[in-house]
Amino acid sequence: MNISARLVKELRKKTGAGMMDCKNALVHTEGDLEKAVDYLRKRGIQAASTKLSRKALNGTIASYIHLNGRVGVLLEINCETDFVAKTQEFTELAKNITLQIAAANPLYIDREDVPLEVLQKEKEIYRSQLENSNKPKNVIENIVEGRLNKYFQETCLLEQEYIRNPELTVKQLVLETIAKLKENIQVKRFVRYQLGE
Amino acid sequence: MNISARLVKELRKKTGAGMMDCKNALVHTEGDLEKAVDYLRKRGIQAASTKLSRKALNGTIASYIHLNGRVGVLLEINCETDFVAKTQEFTELAKNITLQIAAANPLYIDREDVPLEVLQKEKEIYRSQLENSNKPKNVIENIVEGRLNKYFQETCLLEQEYIRNPELTVKQLVLETIAKLKENIQVKRFVRYQLGE
Repeated sequence: MNISARLVKELRKKTGAGMMDCKNALVHTEGDLEKAVDYLRKRGIQAASTKLSRKALNGTIASYIHLNGRVGVLLEINCETDFVAKTQEFTELAKNITLQIAAANPLYIDREDVPLEVLQKEKEIYRSQLENSNKPKNVIENIVEGRLNKYFQETCLLEQEYIRNPELTVKQLVLETIAKLKENIQVKRFVRYQLGE
Repeated sequence: MNISARLVKELRKKTGAGMMDCKNALVHTEGDLEKAVDYLRKRGIQAASTKLSRKALNGTIASYIHLNGRVGVLLEINCETDFVAKTQEFTELAKNITLQIAAANPLYIDREDVPLEVLQKEKEIYRSQLENSNKPKNVIENIVEGRLNKYFQETCLLEQEYIRNPELTVKQLVLETIAKLKENIQVKRFVRYQLGE
């Protein structure tokens, strides 16, 4: 049974349980989300104690207008308490992520948000580029996998190099702030407008 | 042949031709958009000389953060020249429309943007509310039409009362600025985030 990362993510959101618990539950229920929720409940599998599974319902909406009004970004980023939402570290993180989005133009938050049809199209393009290469199939699949990873690093906000410090990914930047503030922090959504696009 | 307002709008965008010309073209081509473009071209029907049909490709992206980061708005508003885009009147209009969106929470730009299934659902609700009223069918249809107009006034940005002067609609506010600046101005798109929604 092949369980999609998307489905696991949704179950994690619903239950706060760990990734492997969610995957196991979905395998047991053959991908039925509602049954998987029950499965986890019956087994008393609670939210993992890691910060990343705690609910982040506070936070802030931040915006950034770039190039004299030619690019604009709107971002929602969540944390657990209003207290942390008001800290300088948190508002700075929000500001820096809007700068990142303005400059690096990500299309998704993370790789699980890339639509299936986009993934398939990307893979098809990579495969067709390698069609006449006479490489063995497994080598081709490795190359396709590698290019797909590169695609994620270019298009997914959390996997992008942080523009103000390319030694970090944006995800690492967020994790650093989580470590500092001791609350779960999640980029919930963003939008980027470019004038006349 | 019933031609939807949406289709007419799209043809107007593509060609800049007047509304009746676009509607006629679509009736002649049985709703085929590409053929309608050709139809208009062949007949040399150019963009009407009104300001409203001129292309608005400059403008600005404006944002507004409300209630200490609990609500945020991003807006693209277009005009014809970079010169007008930099004027105080234009940037003030952009700012005032972001305030409007933050406060009045519109869902669409104008009534042509309301999805067909939403319209149908609204109408169904109104009709079922009147089901046992024993009113004649044409009276019921008039009431439904009236409630639908009210729905547009509540949910469509351009039809909303302008929060800073309820004697104007937002559309009239835009038209006033068009008259002042002598350029076509169009609200192209917006998004409104509310924390935790």
